[in-house]
Formats: sequence, structure tokens, C-alpha cells
Amino acid sequence: MTTKRQLLLTPGPTNVPDAVLEAMKIPMIHHRTKDYQAIFERVNQSLKKVFLTQHPVVTFAASGTGAMEASMTNLLSAGDKVIVAHAGKFGERWRDLAKAYGVEAVCLEKPYGKALDPAEIARALKQHPDAKAVYVTLLETSTAVVHPIREIAAITRESQAILVVDAISGLACDPLKMDEWGVDVVVCGSQKGLMMPPGLAFIAAGPRAQQLIGESKLPKFYFHLGAALKALAKNDTPYTPAVSLVRALEVALDLILKEGPEAVWARHQKIAEWVREKARGAGLQIFSESPSNGLTAILMPEKVVSDQVIRTMRDKHGVIMANGQGDLKGRIVRFAHMGDTARPESAETGWCALTDALEVCSQATPAGGK
Amino acid sequence: MTTKRQLLLTPGPTNVPDAVLEAMKIPMIHHRTKDYQAIFERVNQSLKKVFLTQHPVVTFAASGTGAMEASMTNLLSAGDKVIVAHAGKFGERWRDLAKAYGVEAVCLEKPYGKALDPAEIARALKQHPDAKAVYVTLLETSTAVVHPIREIAAITRESQAILVVDAISGLACDPLKMDEWGVDVVVCGSQKGLMMPPGLAFIAAGPRAQQLIGESKLPKFYFHLGAALKALAKNDTPYTPAVSLVRALEVALDLILKEGPEAVWARHQKIAEWVREKARGAGLQIFSESPSNGLTAILMPEKVVSDQVIRTMRDKHGVIMANGQGDLKGRIVRFAHMGDTARPESAETGWCALTDALEVCSQATPAGGK
Repeated sequence: MTTKRQLLLTPGPTNVPDAVLEAMKIPMIHHRTKDYQAIFERVNQSLKKVFLTQHPVVTFAASGTGAMEASMTNLLSAGDKVIVAHAGKFGERWRDLAKAYGVEAVCLEKPYGKALDPAEIARALKQHPDAKAVYVTLLETSTAVVHPIREIAAITRESQAILVVDAISGLACDPLKMDEWGVDVVVCGSQKGLMMPPGLAFIAAGPRAQQLIGESKLPKFYFHLGAALKALAKNDTPYTPAVSLVRALEVALDLILKEGPEAVWARHQKIAEWVREKARGAGLQIFSESPSNGLTAILMPEKVVSDQVIRTMRDKHGVIMANGQGDLKGRIVRFAHMGDTARPESAETGWCALTDALEVCSQATPAGGK
Repeated sequence: MTTKRQLLLTPGPTNVPDAVLEAMKIPMIHHRTKDYQAIFERVNQSLKKVFLTQHPVVTFAASGTGAMEASMTNLLSAGDKVIVAHAGKFGERWRDLAKAYGVEAVCLEKPYGKALDPAEIARALKQHPDAKAVYVTLLETSTAVVHPIREIAAITRESQAILVVDAISGLACDPLKMDEWGVDVVVCGSQKGLMMPPGLAFIAAGPRAQQLIGESKLPKFYFHLGAALKALAKNDTPYTPAVSLVRALEVALDLILKEGPEAVWARHQKIAEWVREKARGAGLQIFSESPSNGLTAILMPEKVVSDQVIRTMRDKHGVIMANGQGDLKGRIVRFAHMGDTARPESAETGWCALTDALEVCSQATPAGGK
């Protein structure tokens, strides 16, 4: 079993603070007890404060994709039309989900590295007045792009369609004000900005979304939002919750709320700017047109393959960063400053490791690459 | 936050051994690394040994109900016919799942407390030669009944229908030999006999089931077994796994395999017999016609309401047992000896607490009850 601590600079899972890890090893309690329900009540209140919403935030034992699925199967019926705006691997998951459930998706596709265009979404909503929802991503993890959710919400709030945002990677890194901006549904996972182990998925649903939940006919069971919302009103869950993770979540959310969501975003922004400045100063190119606070995608210089760079950082420095996905594999290094690692010391260690690995790999023969 | 250790004698979550709790607080690692894949490979091998199968066992971040859903949406198409044999709240979940997904369920219902009748299942299979699967439960947690899976499998293995067993509560408590008996699908959860926190769900699929997976047209995404099986062959998962829980699972499975599954069943059986003997000796009635190794449902004497008994055990003795569910609420106490609490010292502490609480509550006015 690995016990040596590495510096985890991947865009999820991110490093879990010791206080959060400690909370997981408290002896098990039963979930249908006042002890557990008191914890869950505090967690539910804190989740609202972190999501910046007055509306309920449902917690599922699942990874984030489970909550994405819930945000489709609970809002729509077969044959419904939606607009999916995507520019990366995770945005494409909305398209794939729609296909799996027989939902008609009007896809607005942008190249990897680009940001979504609110004007294009506005045009699509006029062309498709029967679209029930717009599905987008806050931080597209595959490209490190943050999409203009505020501007998109300004359009959807005036339209017939609700706005569903995958904020799995972005929440508590990049600004997102659910109620103030008029976002109807926010989906999240535990292992990114929330500084938790993976295993919990979240979905916050505003009033327009809750109305659609009542009309939706797509099949669902484990991810049944109606049942979950009913149970949530009593700080309960339809099925056994992941007790240890929920207890740890209380601690993680307290850390975020003690600092304050806006201060957390500002801390991420400062680190992200520092990393980009360093990279540009070293003659490297930033891949993303609209870079996120939580993650920087750095293009490799010609003849350098990112696989090698990542392996060198891991073996020589104990620093773990992520490769590109799909066509971007080998071409970019994804340097995360997300959650607990959005701190100067982590970013500096990461940058030193990257600088050294780039030097090592620029000298090596490219044949040793992939 | 609760830190005082109670004796958890509920039928899930069960007590988690310290070594398993400790494994959860190891610093986070990324799941697409050799370190994690080595752990997951060992876990996957151990799961097969505990499920007594040569066939793959898929792990989902979810509670057990998620794996129940997976065993329906991945094997069937809309309009398919199945036989659901049920005699309690958890058996009824198969019926509810079928309804949610437009599957025609022929229901063989027995009263709560009774065991399923293999002959009745054999007759139903002859009457419905188009039934694709039979859905049953190993240990029906609401009634503490263990159903005759071996006898049912002897029938289904000779029929056109596959056998799907919900062993969420029963696995590693009551005997279940998946391959030897000819069970096609076994579904399980982490928080019962496996001595783990809740948050992981399992599904093992034999060759007849894998063939149905290829033909199934019901919609699915997060619980897509085809994608999960493909990833599993490389010790990978389609979506982010619950890393901390999987690491803890390695330790829990090692504990079971060190003792040996048959020895674990024998230990459970011995404790279950001891509890039943004590209860009968005290003039109490066992609710279940076919009592399980993992759980004993004890009928309350006349004028005693189980809510009061359970509250007294909790407040006076720090012993947590479960009430009945639905119509059985107030009428039974469910005394679990499951996983790590299937030990003489836990059963004795539980029995002393129950004896005392029964005495206290027999003297109290019943008005103080519910």
C-alpha cells in the first residue's frame, strides 16, 4: 500500500487535507439516527452556502457523472429537445447522456481550447423555442477552459429553457453564483474544489428545475431526484448514504466557509495567474483561450511529449500532473491548482518539477517518448 | 461530531474494523496511476474469491440499490418479462425497479417472515417460458429471512431464465456459492458483511448474464455494465472510483480471506444460533421462518413497543439495533450479528442490553411508546 505522500496536482482527485482524512476514520454510525441526521443537516446547510443557493442540494453516493445523469433523467422525457454546448471531453458527456436517454440534443460544438459563445446559445434558443434546457460546463477539465456561465445564464433566465451547469471541476475554484446569476441546476463532484475523496455527487435544483422534475418521464431509480428531495426535507436519503464521506464533507465544507467562497476563488485566481505568468515567461504556450482558476493546460514545446514530462515529474519529484486526453494526449500537461493545492507552496513545487522535467525531456531523444 | 464509540448491531452499516478505517485516511492518490491500478487489481481478485466466482465483479461508487438497478437496466429491454419472488421490503425493490423501467414483472409474493418457495418459482418458469430472469434476495433485511438460493439456482440453471440475487445483506454472512450453485448475477453493497463503510456497490456477472448484457436495450449511463466490464479488464473504471473506499476494501477483503469465506459463514451461524437460543430461552419468538446467519428479528412481547426497547438500549447501553420497517415498525427488534459484530462479545453485549431494555419497557406504561 502506498503511504509515501506525493504532491497531487491532478484536476481531481485533488489533495485531501488531513482534517478531512481524519474525519473519515471515525467509528461507523447508522444513518437512520439523530446523530447522523444532525451531521447531514449541517452538511446540507453548508452545501447551500458553497453552491450560493437557497435551493436544495442533493447528495448522492456516486461519482460526478451520476449527478450529470440525474440532471437529465429527472428533468426530461423521451423526445425532449435540449441544447448542448460543448468544447471538450466533459461537455461531450452531455451529448452522450442525451443520446443514451433518447433526448434530442442540438449540439453547439467549439474546438478544444475555445470558450463557448453566449451569442450562439442565444441564437439557438431562438431557433429552437421548444428546447427545454441548455447543458454546459463551468470548467472543462480536458482543456482547462472556463466557460462564460454568467453570460449564458443571463440569456437562459430570459428564455423558456433552464440552464444546467456541470461544475464538477469548477465549483469552489472559478466563480459561480447559482441564484444571483440565475443558474437552474448545478452538478458537482466531491474530489475537486471541495477537497474531498471521490465518491459523492451533488445536484442543486432551483424552482424552474423543480417544476421540470414534476413533469419528467425518463426512467430513473437510484438517481430519483423527486424521492431524494422529499427525503432531503427531513435530512434523510432514500438509500444508504456514504456515511464516512458525508462526515468528511462536513469538515471540508467548514474549511471552505471559514475562508469564504469569494476568498477561495480569489486564492485560486492568484495562483492560476502566477502559473500562467511563469509558463509564458519560460516561453511556453497556454492551451486554453479562457483559462480557469483551477487548472492550467500548458502546451509542450515541439519535440517534447508530455507523457515523458509527466513521468519525470512523478519519478524524480513525486509531483503528479495529468496528461491531455484524446487528441491532446502527449501535447499538453494539465497543472492543477485546485482546492487544497491552490497555494503558493504547491504551485512553486509544481513549477520547479515541471521546469526540471522539461529540461530533462528536451535533451532526451524524442523516441523515448510515448 | 460524534466520537463516542457505540456498539452498532444494525443490519448495515455494520461496525468497521479499525484497520479498515485506518486505510481510508491514507493521502489521496490519482486513480489513473499504476499505484491505484495495483490496488484495484488486488481488490478485483479478492472480490472474486469472496463472491466465489471466476467471473468479473464490477465495483460502482454507489449504494447497493445502484447495483440492483444495474442488474436490471443492463440485462433487459423494455417489455421484457421477469419473475420477481419477494417476501419483504427489499424483495419489493426488484418489483419497483421493474416498474420504473417498463419491465413486466410476474410477482410471486410471500408474507413477511416467510421464505420463498423454489417449487413455486419452478411452476412460474414453466408458465412463463419467455421470462428472461428471476430476481430474488439472499437475506431479506426487513424480516431477517434467508431465502433458499441454492434450491432456486438448481431450477433456474436448467431453465431459460438467469438468476439474479440481491446479496447486499447476505454476502459473507449466509452461504452463497455463485459459480458452484449456478447463480448468474450477484449484487452486493459494502456496508454489511464486508465490514466496510457504505458507498460501494458490486455486481458479479456470469456468462449467461454477460450474453444478456450484449442484448439489453434499456437506457443506462453511469451504471453501464458493458463499459464497466471493458474497463475492469484493465483494472480501470469508466468514471472516477471512490479511491479511499476501494483502498479500505482491500483491507476488509483481506480480513475475510484470511479467515476464509466458509469459516466466516460458520462464525456467523454459531452466533446466530446462540442469539436465537437465548431469545427462545427468554420466551421470545423469532419472527423469521428461515432465520439468517447475519440478522435475528425478535418479536416483542405483547404490550411492548420495539421503539422504546431500541431507545433504551441506545441511551442506557450504547447499543444500536434496528426497528422493524413498514407494518413491522414497533413489533420487532432486528439484532444484527453481521460482519465484524458476528462475535461472542458483541452478541453478549447486545443480548444483555436487550434483556435489560425489555425488562425496563415491560414495566413502563405502553403509552410512553411510539
